[in-house]
Amino acid sequence: MRIAVFGTGMVGQAIAARCDELGHDVTVGTRDPAASRARKVADGTSEGSFGAWLDAHPGINLATYADAAAASELVVNATSGQVALAALGAAGSEHLTGKILIDISNPLDFSAGFPPTLFVKDTDSLGEQIQTAFPDTHVVKALNTLAAELMVRPAQLAGGQHSVFMSGNDAEAKATVHTLLEEFGHTDVIDLGDISTCRGTEMFLALWVRAMGALGTEMFNIKVVR
Amino acid sequence: MRIAVFGTGMVGQAIAARCDELGHDVTVGTRDPAASRARKVADGTSEGSFGAWLDAHPGINLATYADAAAASELVVNATSGQVALAALGAAGSEHLTGKILIDISNPLDFSAGFPPTLFVKDTDSLGEQIQTAFPDTHVVKALNTLAAELMVRPAQLAGGQHSVFMSGNDAEAKATVHTLLEEFGHTDVIDLGDISTCRGTEMFLALWVRAMGALGTEMFNIKVVR
Repeated sequence: MRIAVFGTGMVGQAIAARCDELGHDVTVGTRDPAASRARKVADGTSEGSFGAWLDAHPGINLATYADAAAASELVVNATSGQVALAALGAAGSEHLTGKILIDISNPLDFSAGFPPTLFVKDTDSLGEQIQTAFPDTHVVKALNTLAAELMVRPAQLAGGQHSVFMSGNDAEAKATVHTLLEEFGHTDVIDLGDISTCRGTEMFLALWVRAMGALGTEMFNIKVVR
Repeated sequence: MRIAVFGTGMVGQAIAARCDELGHDVTVGTRDPAASRARKVADGTSEGSFGAWLDAHPGINLATYADAAAASELVVNATSGQVALAALGAAGSEHLTGKILIDISNPLDFSAGFPPTLFVKDTDSLGEQIQTAFPDTHVVKALNTLAAELMVRPAQLAGGQHSVFMSGNDAEAKATVHTLLEEFGHTDVIDLGDISTCRGTEMFLALWVRAMGALGTEMFNIKVVR
């Protein structure tokens, strides 16, 4: 499948690398490709920078949000929640029409420090805001409930015996996303219902961040035992 | 242990019956004991009523909130979130001072139907509001993340291989609650930290209610796989 991955952070890199490894045709979308490629890491070196990561993944293309979306059948939004709508707006609704958009972003607000609060919740969600802004795109919220490495390689934890969730209005789009999640190694994909059900998974982040603090690791996930 | 259980609903009955079965000295606290005892169920019969339940549990006492609290070493708040502070206020802070209060209530607001929203969240929680209102009581939020029958008999699901959480400011109180949860059959009790961490478990309800809808059962829980 031709997949665009929006976002050059940890989540974007994990999703892009895994999709590339699985044989998909991957383009990372970003606001300014030249700037993303040249960006150094915090210590001023290029080691561990996005450019270095990209050089290590020669099968992955880099393009603007618009060009990446135009070239793709499926778009993964792996930007931070604060910039998600802006990134998708920069892609242009004409390049997202009729396509599947997997939204991984969470509405985390770190302005008051850690743990973050949510800038939308309970009576609305970021997933719904994206679906409303792009009514002709099939938004499927998924993978926003676990760490990047476990999103794409769940089998490294308890042989993959834990759960992920999907929320979305289009059954066919969810079937495609389900298949991709199984390619990643997920064994228990729970379809919660329409896109409004992602209020549940986004609000779960309030527990996730505190469990991470208590456990001292991001390498955990929940299994829905029933 | 002398345990007061506030609330005559499903959660209160489950907790009271289980504590009685385990050999604790249990008093159910309610606003008006005579009214609670006489209350019929929806179809107007006494079968399945609280009075009938009480008759079937001769070891369990019924008293006002104040008398139940006064007679107890540990209080379990199993009222609905909407009335939790009023019930505890009726008990009187003098009867709660220095005691452990296990708060199971969730700030659910059903005024707009199902799924419920939360009337406090994200920057505050019902557990914190209770701790603030009763500063000399050791509030431990626990068991608010699963169905009543699983709170008290976790072993009936997957041999008890799933998780519960605790939030509270007092380590000794949490140790006592931990022991009680193990008596119930819980095998994985995760201490999230101080009482503010119950924002996480209360907000988890947004996922719990939607997972219940998708799974078609309340008989599920999460296991934190790590």
